[in-house]
Amino acid sequence: MAAERLVIIGGDAAGMSAASQARRLKGPDELSVTAFERGHFTSYSACGIPYWVSGDVTGRDQLIARTPEEHRARDIDLRTRTEVTEIDVAGRRVRALDRESGETYWTGFDKLVIATGARPVRPELPGMDAAGVHGVQTLDDGQALLETLERTTGRRAVVVGAGYIGVEMAEAMLKRGYEVTVLNRAEQPMATLDPDMGRLVHDAMDGLGIHTVNGAEVTGITTGPDGRVTGVTTDGASYPADVVVLGIGVEPETTLARAVGLPLGPHGGLLTDLSMRVVGHENIWAGGDCVEVLDLVAGRTRHIALGTHANKHGQVIGSNVGGGYGTFPGVVGTAVSKVCDLEIARTGLRERDARAVGLRFVTATIESTGRAGYYPGARPMTVKMLAEYRTGRLLGVQIVGRDGAGKRVDVAAVALTAGMTVEQMTALDLGYAPPFSPVWDPVLVAARRTVSVLRKAGTA
Amino acid sequence: MAAERLVIIGGDAAGMSAASQARRLKGPDELSVTAFERGHFTSYSACGIPYWVSGDVTGRDQLIARTPEEHRARDIDLRTRTEVTEIDVAGRRVRALDRESGETYWTGFDKLVIATGARPVRPELPGMDAAGVHGVQTLDDGQALLETLERTTGRRAVVVGAGYIGVEMAEAMLKRGYEVTVLNRAEQPMATLDPDMGRLVHDAMDGLGIHTVNGAEVTGITTGPDGRVTGVTTDGASYPADVVVLGIGVEPETTLARAVGLPLGPHGGLLTDLSMRVVGHENIWAGGDCVEVLDLVAGRTRHIALGTHANKHGQVIGSNVGGGYGTFPGVVGTAVSKVCDLEIARTGLRERDARAVGLRFVTATIESTGRAGYYPGARPMTVKMLAEYRTGRLLGVQIVGRDGAGKRVDVAAVALTAGMTVEQMTALDLGYAPPFSPVWDPVLVAARRTVSVLRKAGTA
Repeated sequence: MAAERLVIIGGDAAGMSAASQARRLKGPDELSVTAFERGHFTSYSACGIPYWVSGDVTGRDQLIARTPEEHRARDIDLRTRTEVTEIDVAGRRVRALDRESGETYWTGFDKLVIATGARPVRPELPGMDAAGVHGVQTLDDGQALLETLERTTGRRAVVVGAGYIGVEMAEAMLKRGYEVTVLNRAEQPMATLDPDMGRLVHDAMDGLGIHTVNGAEVTGITTGPDGRVTGVTTDGASYPADVVVLGIGVEPETTLARAVGLPLGPHGGLLTDLSMRVVGHENIWAGGDCVEVLDLVAGRTRHIALGTHANKHGQVIGSNVGGGYGTFPGVVGTAVSKVCDLEIARTGLRERDARAVGLRFVTATIESTGRAGYYPGARPMTVKMLAEYRTGRLLGVQIVGRDGAGKRVDVAAVALTAGMTVEQMTALDLGYAPPFSPVWDPVLVAARRTVSVLRKAGTA
Repeated sequence: MAAERLVIIGGDAAGMSAASQARRLKGPDELSVTAFERGHFTSYSACGIPYWVSGDVTGRDQLIARTPEEHRARDIDLRTRTEVTEIDVAGRRVRALDRESGETYWTGFDKLVIATGARPVRPELPGMDAAGVHGVQTLDDGQALLETLERTTGRRAVVVGAGYIGVEMAEAMLKRGYEVTVLNRAEQPMATLDPDMGRLVHDAMDGLGIHTVNGAEVTGITTGPDGRVTGVTTDGASYPADVVVLGIGVEPETTLARAVGLPLGPHGGLLTDLSMRVVGHENIWAGGDCVEVLDLVAGRTRHIALGTHANKHGQVIGSNVGGGYGTFPGVVGTAVSKVCDLEIARTGLRERDARAVGLRFVTATIESTGRAGYYPGARPMTVKMLAEYRTGRLLGVQIVGRDGAGKRVDVAAVALTAGMTVEQMTALDLGYAPPFSPVWDPVLVAARRTVSVLRKAGTA
């Protein structure tokens, strides 16, 4: 009997995790695995690019978890620089374009995995393609930015966007000695937080010497006679720049899927079932940045481009296509980041998310420290908590602070997954010792305050 | 109508939290609050004593959360240096001894709170009361040790016991420039971990220059002609010492309660219901280090002396005696500590705990890092996980490592509270960014490995 043919489109986290896991479960006699990757690299940490640019990470290869050669050594037929340009769903084949030779050819599949990732949002504005304007989504992008930085003598950097990538790139450019201006369309940086918490990030960035302009709508890039970037204009002003970094966010790359009518959700991502199989398609799976995932708190799908989810998806897909079993139940929306020593974390719903799905809620915000107040190095941290009116169910947590603030959000992530109420959370048995926490952990202090707000609202 | 009379025995975390919370809910016209404390201090962090001795914390007063004067200013009749010597349950009164004047007197109560704490285990051995031999349970103990250290010119310290207090005091004495020997009765340090994990602590202590002797049963203290300590003898050897620190652990201080037949559990602690009311006694509550608490994983009571529980108990008692409502459902056994930069954490059941309650289980141990492997400062961490055979329910987690290892145990603590299986845990949405975690958080890696062990055991 001929081996079953597994074809994978996309050679990064989701695709190659799926390939590896399937290969772990089935040998080449049973299953052939062919993976197409349009770039040079596989299985790399895009999240690490800001730290490569900053110099914290010394080389590109450190960001590569597994090279094409390593995958090939595991009996995966990996074809880099090869782009899939068409899916023939009924004919069970994909058309590939070898970007080196220009040759195209069809490859048949019994099972297909779509892991095409996300593409950066790149507004159609004058000058967007000028020399010195860089995205930072792929290793190739990072390499190009670093080459620009080596050539550029000017020290003025403008970062467009103040989300995770934006603030991380602001830190990176600051560390490289640039004067950094961040242009942010939203009311405050980190729109994944509520504005009151985003304000804390703004103030901290200010304190670090990062100039952040909120409510700034970029209208174009200005260039010099040599075609290189000279500045960024907004609806209200213009900012001189020797280099511009775009950190505006990403959207699902689903061009191929859309062309053949695969089901897409409200955010443009592929829709799958719990086994990561594309809805309505027995033999097609999808995972990573090109799918929508269930937000377990909101009960709606969301699009979240994050390596940790992509790895989990790949693991689940690989188990299922390899004859094992796995499911991806969904996310609670946990994210953590930092600007220099300021840690920023969130999980669950912001106020606007809760409103958008019809939830009524209360909020509480407290200040505490990451260690006992008397222990050396104790630094302030602010925790905001949302709980549902009446039921008291935890809806979300946002944390901004230093010294161990960020990963504290994990406690809330597990509590959200378990559907805990804030009253239940007040009794959580969290680790306590003076170097690690005040006697009431900040998350417990926030839970107690939220319970008290619920009571005053006559609802608990 | 006369105010209701609340009497509290013990002026530390549980007692004074109860007093403060009751006072918050009811004013002095409705409720009188009288608290008896046999020492000089109230509401202090005993857990902070090692860091005061080490010099990390600069003064005793930093460890005091609220002074007697501050309590009195909140309409709490606080009587320090006053010991309750007898409870008259039927007569609803306690007998107090003023340790300054020697006077005794009776005080009546409508509601009584017993918060008598724990006492150090101090074996009856020759020389135990010699000058230079110190416990570290109270602020008075810490003060006495510091006075000895100022007078002592020798640099040899022996710490008896290698539990939390022992290892923390070993670090403190090392920081003060002593040659430190730890005499440990158990097979490995940190008997609150399984021996395989305790071994990692042993090796790290060794690397720090702390000499740890396992399986050492102390048989006596030797003294010089001036009555001062000169060494510690064990069943196998003798160790010269200029100062000896006892960190052998504590047991519930329930002498008063025992004398009047209040119900005690198998570990010698008072037994309460969920509202922290002493079983069978309508008007007596108890909390803090003198009670047993329900271990939610084992389904049995345990004795755990820990400030964070005592504070929660006090909060619950204060709510209930003040006319509000609160319960303390139990613990999962979370604890975190450190020796220099080595972080040590545990929650749930060890192997022997699981066996002791008749649970069959599997274990898995993994190594990972606290940040992405390529991110500067990534340091190794070992995570051991226990899960129940067949159900796959998480039973316990132990973590030893550096750089953010300790507080990761909180994720497991919440998962234990929620009764999650390790399979469910593999899908947890934990915070990921390279400075905070590898793309698979160490806890997730451990959960995946445990699932795989369960499968091989034919049980999942």
